[in-house]
Amino acid sequence: MILLDGKKLADKILAELKQRVFESPKKLRLAVIVVGDDPVVRQFIERKQKAAQNIGVDTRVYPFPDSMSTSELRARLAEIVHEEKNTGVIVQLPLPEKINSQYILNGILPSKDVDLLSARSLGLLAAGRSHILPPVAGAVKALLEEYQIDYHAKKIAVVGAGQLVGKPIVLWLLNEKATFSVIRSSTLNPGEILRNSDIIITGIGKPNFLTGDMIKEGVVIIDAGTSESAGKIVGDVDPDSVAAKAAYLTPVPGGVGPLTVAILLKNLVSRARRG
Amino acid sequence: MILLDGKKLADKILAELKQRVFESPKKLRLAVIVVGDDPVVRQFIERKQKAAQNIGVDTRVYPFPDSMSTSELRARLAEIVHEEKNTGVIVQLPLPEKINSQYILNGILPSKDVDLLSARSLGLLAAGRSHILPPVAGAVKALLEEYQIDYHAKKIAVVGAGQLVGKPIVLWLLNEKATFSVIRSSTLNPGEILRNSDIIITGIGKPNFLTGDMIKEGVVIIDAGTSESAGKIVGDVDPDSVAAKAAYLTPVPGGVGPLTVAILLKNLVSRARRG
Repeated sequence: MILLDGKKLADKILAELKQRVFESPKKLRLAVIVVGDDPVVRQFIERKQKAAQNIGVDTRVYPFPDSMSTSELRARLAEIVHEEKNTGVIVQLPLPEKINSQYILNGILPSKDVDLLSARSLGLLAAGRSHILPPVAGAVKALLEEYQIDYHAKKIAVVGAGQLVGKPIVLWLLNEKATFSVIRSSTLNPGEILRNSDIIITGIGKPNFLTGDMIKEGVVIIDAGTSESAGKIVGDVDPDSVAAKAAYLTPVPGGVGPLTVAILLKNLVSRARRG
Repeated sequence: MILLDGKKLADKILAELKQRVFESPKKLRLAVIVVGDDPVVRQFIERKQKAAQNIGVDTRVYPFPDSMSTSELRARLAEIVHEEKNTGVIVQLPLPEKINSQYILNGILPSKDVDLLSARSLGLLAAGRSHILPPVAGAVKALLEEYQIDYHAKKIAVVGAGQLVGKPIVLWLLNEKATFSVIRSSTLNPGEILRNSDIIITGIGKPNFLTGDMIKEGVVIIDAGTSESAGKIVGDVDPDSVAAKAAYLTPVPGGVGPLTVAILLKNLVSRARRG
């Protein structure tokens, strides 16, 4: 089994971006909206800040208390989006349960929406008219291309259809002319589809969900799941269990995660160029 | 094999709509933009006009010559969309090759977009925030519900991912928490997935594409394909070939077609109520 080195590819992409940022006459800034104070979330934000800093992009974190209402947050978001210094704006998910996430995300103008989570960005993506990809989709695409794994004539399984992984992956694959299946928690016998898949992309946040008995020989596994287990970030795959059968696997950490951050910053640079 | 009577269900929906239209203080009008003069397309438009007339909804067809450019058409569309009398606006597809279809469709305001083909409508749909469904998705949903065919715990195959059938079906299924696979012309061995599917929805416009050897016993087949064969509208399924194995099949004509028209008009009535 070969480990797909997302970290290495991320560093390569970031080095290219650094050069582009250096040549850009405009100072770029990523605005990060955070509600509440979760240590795991803080860790994710710190990684984005660090990567941005390394390539010469500013970040500004806008922290808000858990008590924030949907309408207050949307009003503050509007100000942040219209602040000229912010070239890209992201909202760190998940937001507290009581907040209507999609309504908040819809407040991000497409020109500053580097995560592609607003309804307008999703629409352009679904219509095949987006110039950039959602970070996780861009990360998976970059990784498959880097390792020259053709995915057009393969059977792809997408596990989960959530806002951050499954849905953006599906919208990307729809326009890639790919053959794919969507599996979710309601799927009665996921192994039946998984054992027939050449590429498996997981994004459900369930540690050790994918095991060796659910896959076929030679499968490519992209683990885009993230959950916390004993203070560590883990994926959806049990690496030891799949090792004997899988041809490729993204490790967690060091797989999809750092690449997603790199593509987010690539989106920021692309958006700024067009804006 | 039981034929799923789309025509009968369409008539039932239209009868309910007729009552709602009768009670509405506002006169409703569907604007239909047509480029070129194709006899099959004319037939589709006539069906929409007839159904609308039967429930007391006006239609106005705006015909344009094949020579129309994208920018001219978009400019005319803007006027038609802003005409107050038009409560809903649709663009009859396909448009001539040289016209950028998605750019034209994006000119329809969400409040008048009863076909849900603009990027903004697709985005609201993808985000799970649309109050109405694309006509073909609404038709399939209505048919499955009418015949009490549960589709949530089943494996669904969607054949084709085109603008008019496959893509809207996928965006609907994404938010329905359904398990589904997307098969397209690039899929190497479609039968492998199809023979493992409980429900098959086709929308590719290839007569006799789906045959008995590609399906399993007891499958539900929804034929949303339309093509012309010897002057007749035909679907994607070879009905004689699947008859011995399929539990249900939508006939063509009289299946998804008339229902799609009924749901289009239902969308018009719903949009007008909210507007």
